[in-house]
Amino acid sequence: MSTLATLTNHQIRLAARPVGTPTRANWSTTTEAVAEPAEGGVLVKTLALSLDPAMRGWMNEGKSYIPPVGIGEVMRAGGIGKVIASKNPAFAVGDVVSAVLGVQEYLLVPQADLKRSSLAKIDLTLGSQTQWLNVLGMPGMTGYFGLMDVGQPKAGETVVVSGAAGAVGQTVGQLARIKGCRAVGIAGGRAKCDWVVKELGFDACIDYKAGPSAVRDGLKEHCPNGVDIYFDNVGGEILDAALARLARGARIIICGAISQYNNTSAVQGPKNYLSLLVNRARMQGIVVFDYADRYPLAVAELAGYLKDGRMKSKEDIVKGLDTFPEALIKLFTGENFGKLVLQVAED
Amino acid sequence: MSTLATLTNHQIRLAARPVGTPTRANWSTTTEAVAEPAEGGVLVKTLALSLDPAMRGWMNEGKSYIPPVGIGEVMRAGGIGKVIASKNPAFAVGDVVSAVLGVQEYLLVPQADLKRSSLAKIDLTLGSQTQWLNVLGMPGMTGYFGLMDVGQPKAGETVVVSGAAGAVGQTVGQLARIKGCRAVGIAGGRAKCDWVVKELGFDACIDYKAGPSAVRDGLKEHCPNGVDIYFDNVGGEILDAALARLARGARIIICGAISQYNNTSAVQGPKNYLSLLVNRARMQGIVVFDYADRYPLAVAELAGYLKDGRMKSKEDIVKGLDTFPEALIKLFTGENFGKLVLQVAED
Repeated sequence: MSTLATLTNHQIRLAARPVGTPTRANWSTTTEAVAEPAEGGVLVKTLALSLDPAMRGWMNEGKSYIPPVGIGEVMRAGGIGKVIASKNPAFAVGDVVSAVLGVQEYLLVPQADLKRSSLAKIDLTLGSQTQWLNVLGMPGMTGYFGLMDVGQPKAGETVVVSGAAGAVGQTVGQLARIKGCRAVGIAGGRAKCDWVVKELGFDACIDYKAGPSAVRDGLKEHCPNGVDIYFDNVGGEILDAALARLARGARIIICGAISQYNNTSAVQGPKNYLSLLVNRARMQGIVVFDYADRYPLAVAELAGYLKDGRMKSKEDIVKGLDTFPEALIKLFTGENFGKLVLQVAED
Repeated sequence: MSTLATLTNHQIRLAARPVGTPTRANWSTTTEAVAEPAEGGVLVKTLALSLDPAMRGWMNEGKSYIPPVGIGEVMRAGGIGKVIASKNPAFAVGDVVSAVLGVQEYLLVPQADLKRSSLAKIDLTLGSQTQWLNVLGMPGMTGYFGLMDVGQPKAGETVVVSGAAGAVGQTVGQLARIKGCRAVGIAGGRAKCDWVVKELGFDACIDYKAGPSAVRDGLKEHCPNGVDIYFDNVGGEILDAALARLARGARIIICGAISQYNNTSAVQGPKNYLSLLVNRARMQGIVVFDYADRYPLAVAELAGYLKDGRMKSKEDIVKGLDTFPEALIKLFTGENFGKLVLQVAED
């Protein structure tokens, strides 16, 4: 372990709260020496970090489902890492783990922080490192419990999901198909839509960039009996278009609203919300952490689908810790194609 | 029955669809001779009509939970009447009935229309004529099934209801108290709020007319642990204020949106809807007709509360068929105090 002293931890910290879309000016970089773990502690080297729309929310002040990242703190991020030093019998050097690592190269986890950092060994026979950030990670868990617990799909129903080529969306649509539903995606651009239909097997995918009435027209064409479940990752106009096409007794899962996260004015409320009344429908929010006790069951089920080929996954991998500020923006411009992952180290 | 020939039926018909608040110009009046019922039919004389916010929606073109009233048709209205001629053994002259009577003095119900007109005898030992349009009628049923089935209140929870002095609101708040909840009303003006607290026994009532931050401040004061159930009759700013104060796992019942019905621009969507996500809350619409099979059970329960004094009711009675156009407007200006009833005949 004497080599640890030669290591430097590069970190990205929140320097200022953004107004609108985050820029380089919202971040600062720091370096720290890497310390050895004390009794019961573990030192983890970051391999890959999950970049998620939710990160934009964590940068804002104010009450939410999780405290904001403080000014000057290392930016919060979940990721996959490798144990490079351990004074805890539950973890051995070389173990691959998932944890809330933060946007940095190393995380020292004292024994007292094991639970708070969600440190857990992962089984690479169930899926690859990046799949553990995608379908077997938070996005997959969000899609699984959002669809199954909140949406309660029944075979034959029509499930619509926005951000269909994204991390949550790809899981939702494929899982809907596996459960006997029709799956209709909404994504940006022909390439994503083609992939969603041809590779993932969705029944249809609507390109929201194809014109101002593309989503309205597409939902009309592809959901002739209305929308039974709408899994919403985007909010804004697309949520309103889905509300306008609800079937009787529909369920809307509110998972996120990426179209609204960089607003400098108020969030755009769904002006068609009275469709909930007309159609006896419900709109319900989900926070994935509430289902932590059942992650292992969902991981086992989804890993089975990966193994038997009924489920595929796609990750969009960006390399280098220092590209974090620009990489994050790709989520909001829709440039990422698949689950966005920041590869920090190869090994 | 030879006297029927001398009777004239005065009617109010929809002449033109309103833009914004309805005016006299949206209505026409007609008179028709009153005809005797054929075999199996019943002739009903209107005693009292229910005036409801939902009527504004029925005046609009377009798909909703019920077809719009057609141009030139007698305006739809539920009411209480008296059978004055019958060729149906199930109804005798003198029976008091509830039915979709329309805004007119007489309704001839052919046998084929008995079900469509919802013709049913009512028991005046359970409640007065006007109570049968209030707590024992559609508003009471809406409040009962909205609170109990959609809201699923648990003892100790905080239930907030807007339009608290109105027909639905008075039932919701009192029923919430009976079920062991705290009840907080929102109503317009000191007089209504005082009545809601002192007469109906709500724990508090917020006067939304008291100032621009009255609702926000009032919810903060009277719901220190957040809002577990919000029963919404109004929409707009008040819905947003309630969303901002939700407790974890809250339920919002969307019953109506009277603040939006006369809009000439788009409905104001709830810009705080992402509170559903943060608080794992749900927002769900209700249409009372879905619960028709269970009306008798709810009527029996509510009539019991009227009898033992745990529930009170208040009706605001306006007289004369020809006052209908102006009487209806009272709902949108908030001038009515209690369930608004149009008394068409005394007997």
